[in-house]
Amino acid sequence: MGVTAASHNDTLSDRPLSPVSTPSVSTPIDRWIVERIQASVASQPIRCVLWDGFDVGPRHGAVATVSFNTRRALLSCAWHPELYFGEMYTSGAVDVSGDFVKLMEAIYRRPPPPTRFWQRWQPRNTLRLSRSNVHHHYDIGNEFYRLWLDRDLVYTCAYFASQVQGGAAPPIAEMSLEGAQTAKLERVCRKLRLVPGERVVEAGCGWGALALHMAKHYGVTVKAFNISTEQIAYARERARVEDLSRRVEFIEDDYRNVSGQFEAFVSVGMLEHVGLANFATLGTVVDRVLTPAGRGLLHFIGRNRPAPLNPWINRRIFPGAYPPTLHEVCERVLEPVGLSVLDVENLRLHYAATLDHWRRRFEQSVDRVRDMFDESFVRAWRLYLSGSEASFSTGWLQLFQIVFARGTSNAIPWTRLD
Amino acid sequence: MGVTAASHNDTLSDRPLSPVSTPSVSTPIDRWIVERIQASVASQPIRCVLWDGFDVGPRHGAVATVSFNTRRALLSCAWHPELYFGEMYTSGAVDVSGDFVKLMEAIYRRPPPPTRFWQRWQPRNTLRLSRSNVHHHYDIGNEFYRLWLDRDLVYTCAYFASQVQGGAAPPIAEMSLEGAQTAKLERVCRKLRLVPGERVVEAGCGWGALALHMAKHYGVTVKAFNISTEQIAYARERARVEDLSRRVEFIEDDYRNVSGQFEAFVSVGMLEHVGLANFATLGTVVDRVLTPAGRGLLHFIGRNRPAPLNPWINRRIFPGAYPPTLHEVCERVLEPVGLSVLDVENLRLHYAATLDHWRRRFEQSVDRVRDMFDESFVRAWRLYLSGSEASFSTGWLQLFQIVFARGTSNAIPWTRLD
Repeated sequence: MGVTAASHNDTLSDRPLSPVSTPSVSTPIDRWIVERIQASVASQPIRCVLWDGFDVGPRHGAVATVSFNTRRALLSCAWHPELYFGEMYTSGAVDVSGDFVKLMEAIYRRPPPPTRFWQRWQPRNTLRLSRSNVHHHYDIGNEFYRLWLDRDLVYTCAYFASQVQGGAAPPIAEMSLEGAQTAKLERVCRKLRLVPGERVVEAGCGWGALALHMAKHYGVTVKAFNISTEQIAYARERARVEDLSRRVEFIEDDYRNVSGQFEAFVSVGMLEHVGLANFATLGTVVDRVLTPAGRGLLHFIGRNRPAPLNPWINRRIFPGAYPPTLHEVCERVLEPVGLSVLDVENLRLHYAATLDHWRRRFEQSVDRVRDMFDESFVRAWRLYLSGSEASFSTGWLQLFQIVFARGTSNAIPWTRLD
Repeated sequence: MGVTAASHNDTLSDRPLSPVSTPSVSTPIDRWIVERIQASVASQPIRCVLWDGFDVGPRHGAVATVSFNTRRALLSCAWHPELYFGEMYTSGAVDVSGDFVKLMEAIYRRPPPPTRFWQRWQPRNTLRLSRSNVHHHYDIGNEFYRLWLDRDLVYTCAYFASQVQGGAAPPIAEMSLEGAQTAKLERVCRKLRLVPGERVVEAGCGWGALALHMAKHYGVTVKAFNISTEQIAYARERARVEDLSRRVEFIEDDYRNVSGQFEAFVSVGMLEHVGLANFATLGTVVDRVLTPAGRGLLHFIGRNRPAPLNPWINRRIFPGAYPPTLHEVCERVLEPVGLSVLDVENLRLHYAATLDHWRRRFEQSVDRVRDMFDESFVRAWRLYLSGSEASFSTGWLQLFQIVFARGTSNAIPWTRLD
C-alpha cells in the first residue's frame, strides 16, 4: 500500500538546493524571481506570495494564489518548474489556494519547456520494468480507485455524448460519469464492429470493464491481458459474479505474450505505458494475432509534437510512460506490419471533462484518501488530476482513438454510419 | 493538345531492349519467362499468350488475357514490369482482353516491388516544375474531362453515402456519380463546420466545384488557388455564370503564395502533387494564414507504407506526384507548426467506386477520346484508370481526409454528430 505515497520521500537528488536557508524577510532577488514566475503564468490572473507576505499579481480577482513557503521552494521552482513545482507542492513547501485547474492551465499555456538532453533517454520497458511501473500506479489499492472512479472502474477517457446517431447529444453537464463511460465502451465496440461469436483480445484491460461489456452486450469471447495483480484479481471476481467467466478470460501477463488468433485487437489506455522502444514489438504482436479480416483499435493519450513526459509525472505518477504523437504510432506500430488506418478521432476535451469528474469525486473523498495514505499523497494526486485536466483542456495532451485493419483487408466499414 | 498523348512517343531510354528481334516461334526461354510472369499474378485466373500462340494459364474462365506481341514486350515486362507493362500496353506491343481491373488487381496483389535506389530521389517541385507537372495532366483540355467526369468536374474521390445522419445510406449501386460527388462536397463542408461569413482558402481547387459549393450553400467567401490555366479559366466562367464572382475569387497561383487570414483552410487532391520536400513549406503556409480558431482539411491519396510512386504513372500521368503516408503528413506538415489532428477518415473503397464510374464513362466515350487524341492516349488512360481503381480496391493506395485545428484552439467540435 502507498507506493506512490512512499515515493515522495525526498532523496538526495530531490534536494538540489537543500543548503538554502529561508531568511525571515525576502531579498530583492527573491522578489525579482517571484515576479518573473508570476509573469510567466500571466495568461490567467495568478497571485504569487512569498513566505514574508510579499506578493505579486492581482489581490482581487486572482483565480489562484501560489504561496512559496521557503526560499528553497522558490528557487527550485524557478530552476526546473516542470519537476520541482510538483515536488514542492507535494511536500507542502508550496501551497495553492483557489482554482487549481486554472493555475495549471496558465502553466501549460507558457511556451513549451526545453527538452533537457537526459530526458531524451528513457529506459526500455522490459517485461520486468513494465511490471514494476504498472505496480507503482495501479496496485495501490482498488479501494482507493473506487472512491473516485465510476461504478465500473473505467480509468480512461469517457465519451460525453449520446450514442444515438441523429439524436441530439445531451449537454455534457447532464451526462453522468457512469453514462459517459458506458457511452465510451459502446463507442469502442461499435468502432470495432463486433459480431457475436468473434474472438477479441484486449491488451491492458484495467479492471475489466470493457472486456465484460463486450462479452455481455456483443456476444464475443475475450482474452484480456494485464500485468496489474490487483486489477486482474478484481476483474476475475467481477466475471465470476456476473457469470461471464466462460466468455472472458483475464490473463495476468504482458501484451508481448499474447498468442492465438482474434477477429479484433483492442487496447484502451495501454499504449502510453509501452514506450517508443517497444512500438515495433507491439506492431508484430498485432500482426501475429489478428485474422486476415480482423480490426483493431488503439485508444491512447498522445501529443501533437514529440516531447518527453513531464518529469514530475514520470517520477511520481507514471514511471516509464510516454504519450506518443500520431506519426510515431503510425510509423512505428502500424506501418512496419502493413496495418491500415481507417479512422482517427481526437477526444481530448472529453478527457478534460472526465478528469473534472474524477477530481471532484477525489476531493469529496479527500479525508478518506488522507486516512488511507497521507497528506503528501493527497497533494500529489490533486496535482496530477488537476494538471492532467489542464493539459487536455489546453491542448498539451491529446486523446486519440485509431481504428485499423490489415492493408489487404476489404472487410472494412463502408462509412461511419453503420 | 495531347501533352500526355505526345509524351508516349518512345525516347531512347524507353527502348532498353530495342535490338531484340521477335522470332516467328517462341523459344523455351520465352516460354519459361511468360510462365514466371503468369505465376506472379496467380491470385486471379489470368491467361498469357505469346506472339506465336503459345499460352499459359486457364483457357476457359480466365478473367483477362495478356498478349505479348513481341519478344521485346515480353522481356521488358519481365525486367521492370512497373514501368514497361504500361509502356508496352500503351504502344500496342502488349494487348489486354477481358477484365482490365481484375488484371491490375492481380498485379497489385503481388509482393510490393523493390524500391530501386534512383526512385528514392525526386526532384523538388519548385514553382516552375509544379506548373509544368500540373500543365502535363490538367491542361489537356476541359472538353476531354467533361466526357467522363461528373457534371461539376470534380476530379477527386466521391462519397457514396447519404449525408443524412441516422438514415440508412443508399446502396452504392443506387447512387449516381453526381450524387456521390455532391455528398463529398457536403461532407467536406460539414467536417470544416463552415459558418456563413467565414473566409475560406482552398489550395488546389480543380475546376472550382468545392469553392462554388461552399460559397453557394454555406455563405462563406472563398479564395481558391490553382496553377492549371485551363481549370482556372473554367472555374472563373462558372462563377460568373452562377453569379458567385463576388464571393469566390479564383487565383491562378501556387499554394506557396497564399496570403491573408482565413477561418478555414481546405485542400482536396493537391497534397499528392506537393512532394515530401515541400511538406514543411505547406505547413508554414497553413500556419501563416489560419486564424487562431481556424480549422483545416486535407484530402489526399496516401499509402500505408512509404513507397515511391509507380514509375509509369510518374512518367506518363502524374510527374512529380508522391502519395504520402499518414505519418509523413503528420510529421512534416502538421507537427512542426503545432497543428492538431482532430479526425481522420480513410475512404479508399469510395475511390475505387469513383474510378469505376470514371472508367465506364471513359469507355463509353472512347471513340471521341481517340478522335481528340490517338490510340496510345486511349490506352494510357485506360491503364491509368483501371490501375488506379485496382490500387484502391487492393489497398495499395489509400484516401485520407484529415481534419485539423491549431493545438491551442478549443473551438473544436465536441463530437462528430454535429
